[in-house]
Amino acid sequence: MKKIKGISFLKNGSMTSAKGFVAAGMHCGIKRVSKKHDISLIVSEKAANAAGVFTVNRAKAWPVYLAIENLKNAKHMAILGTSGNANCLNGVTGKAAAWTCLKSAADELGVKPQEVLIAQTGIIGMRYPVHCVERAMPELVRNLSVKGAHDAARGILTTDKRTKELAVTVLIGGKKVTIGAAAKGAGMVHPYMATMLCFITTDAAITKALLHKALKAAVQTTFNAIAIDNDMSTNDCAFVLANGLAGNLEIKKENADYKKFAVALELLLKEVAVGLVEDGEGVKHVCHITVKNAKTDEEAAKAARQVGNSMLFKTMVTGEDPNWGRIIAAVGASQIQFNPQKFSVAIGGIPIVREGVVRFSNRPKAKKVMANAHFDVTVDLHYGKGKATFVTSDLTHEYVSINGAYS
Amino acid sequence: MKKIKGISFLKNGSMTSAKGFVAAGMHCGIKRVSKKHDISLIVSEKAANAAGVFTVNRAKAWPVYLAIENLKNAKHMAILGTSGNANCLNGVTGKAAAWTCLKSAADELGVKPQEVLIAQTGIIGMRYPVHCVERAMPELVRNLSVKGAHDAARGILTTDKRTKELAVTVLIGGKKVTIGAAAKGAGMVHPYMATMLCFITTDAAITKALLHKALKAAVQTTFNAIAIDNDMSTNDCAFVLANGLAGNLEIKKENADYKKFAVALELLLKEVAVGLVEDGEGVKHVCHITVKNAKTDEEAAKAARQVGNSMLFKTMVTGEDPNWGRIIAAVGASQIQFNPQKFSVAIGGIPIVREGVVRFSNRPKAKKVMANAHFDVTVDLHYGKGKATFVTSDLTHEYVSINGAYS
Repeated sequence: MKKIKGISFLKNGSMTSAKGFVAAGMHCGIKRVSKKHDISLIVSEKAANAAGVFTVNRAKAWPVYLAIENLKNAKHMAILGTSGNANCLNGVTGKAAAWTCLKSAADELGVKPQEVLIAQTGIIGMRYPVHCVERAMPELVRNLSVKGAHDAARGILTTDKRTKELAVTVLIGGKKVTIGAAAKGAGMVHPYMATMLCFITTDAAITKALLHKALKAAVQTTFNAIAIDNDMSTNDCAFVLANGLAGNLEIKKENADYKKFAVALELLLKEVAVGLVEDGEGVKHVCHITVKNAKTDEEAAKAARQVGNSMLFKTMVTGEDPNWGRIIAAVGASQIQFNPQKFSVAIGGIPIVREGVVRFSNRPKAKKVMANAHFDVTVDLHYGKGKATFVTSDLTHEYVSINGAYS
Repeated sequence: MKKIKGISFLKNGSMTSAKGFVAAGMHCGIKRVSKKHDISLIVSEKAANAAGVFTVNRAKAWPVYLAIENLKNAKHMAILGTSGNANCLNGVTGKAAAWTCLKSAADELGVKPQEVLIAQTGIIGMRYPVHCVERAMPELVRNLSVKGAHDAARGILTTDKRTKELAVTVLIGGKKVTIGAAAKGAGMVHPYMATMLCFITTDAAITKALLHKALKAAVQTTFNAIAIDNDMSTNDCAFVLANGLAGNLEIKKENADYKKFAVALELLLKEVAVGLVEDGEGVKHVCHITVKNAKTDEEAAKAARQVGNSMLFKTMVTGEDPNWGRIIAAVGASQIQFNPQKFSVAIGGIPIVREGVVRFSNRPKAKKVMANAHFDVTVDLHYGKGKATFVTSDLTHEYVSINGAYS
């Protein structure tokens, strides 16, 4: 974990680490076979500013349309999440189902449906079992507590093996501000908010507009810079609720306080994003690809993403094979400007090509590095000053097995 | 195989089916370990018009640069192909090596180096063993014969399991015109001319400009509409030599004769392209995805390509699982315009969604169709009149195994 002065990760940080948040999660019946947790609720004791970012897929799930609509409301009290059914591409009954879920939570909490955000994940194209949600709601609300964060984190998982929960604290204007998050990922994880949900809670006092700005910026370099497969989901979203209970002077401008908050949020989401890749379907290796000295940051990001999504690169990571030709072939395929006679490639800091000259003798050392669960690949294009990092996984037999037998 | 009146596929068609072509292939030493064929030569007895299309990767292999340069020459006599080493990203010695290969073939044939086209495929970033090519050239030229086509087709293979050789005949102006082809594919096969070589020979009389036009158009709907993985190679190219020995009146305009030639060429390359997917690394299923009634043909092509490249779709094909939600999620991810409440999906002609309504009872039948080695997926968007087809493969354990242990 990268360390930045003034920002600390909390031990056992979660969605209820920030002041004034309670959560609950349980099994309500959507995951009929596995009987695992499939519903989560996160509630702020004080009306919070909220922001969200969503999949850009043209086929969006019903909860996404509903959450986009609800975000127009000034303040929000809760986030409802369910897993096991995406409530997507299942006809107009799905729309009514999403609304009934929202209404059910709002009624039980005694708030307006517009004050609740909703996210759902799971299989596409199936009728949504709305009665499960309605039936479970009284118990779910009864269970709300600070200790309920872990259950709530479990309630949004699909093929994930573990929850992804973290929290950071940052001093803003002399007040300790906490930001916590839980996310699910596993498959269909790709840049542009692909199948993942992330719920973020903070006690920071910050305007709705700046909260949105900080979230959007942080997502760009975190969730939008990771890949497990190349599929964009219909359901992705990240929500943040900020209830202001930390007591800091409200952040109303892009000042030093805003920057501290934005940096802490980005750092938190970066760790969550890496956790998503680590826990990706069948993932054995996590690879951090940095392209530096490209013409621009955008070109560096384009190249790093192309490498990270290349199936030949991903299988080379699986095979722990420092076959750097595939890396440069992917850089070339990205259509960015560079000189194919002058580039350097290092794996785990070990140079395997230096300004176009291959270091054959370093291959065994590089191969050894690739046996680690995490390693870095650095491509130096010696062309400009642009830099970007993309985090990807290997493509394993397990990925094929899991996705060959999903529905 | 699709049938078009007046066009017939030849039994045992090959690169020497057209009049006036001889070929040879052998092992020269590039594939040191396997000792398989690794060099091919195809020669026209009469100076031919030539055309070529190439990878758009920014990191192109040396033979690609050389072939692009040589295509500026008016007439061509031969195509030289080698496999086992891509002669790519290996420093300036690679450039000299490619030139020496060309020169060696030209000298032995008694033609100018500018009259020879060159293509090379194999591993990237390794020094090219040019002495192997020089040493083998006298024997290779001695072996040239009409019967040598199969050896030549073998000489360009890498991880391919079989050669892809075909030929068609078409009557043009009362003369029988023959077009033959051989190709290699297997891995790094993706739209935009990704790792594949295709050598085409024809006895048609056609101008160089129209030959290029027909090749470019045919490649667009054939090689550029298939995928095995999502990687674009540094070495792809397709060459065609037309020596005019069929005796047809030279095709100088885009008239009926041109259309006949273009249709025959497209039909031939379509079969070759499907053969490339069939023989792709680890491929067990070939899936022909048609998107119809999209807003435009371009939008249909974009959607079909996105489905064909989706790892979740490919693993669903592996698992023979009619999980159509992944198909529509990919259509949505392609960013084309459509109504996510109104679409139909059929697998092997069996409707599994009809205008947004799921036909659950048809799932078992659809699953049965997916057990076939070839099957169709049709997505009807009920939106416009655009149509396109894309051919893809499953993503199997074998693909992961092959590419995890390549270099």
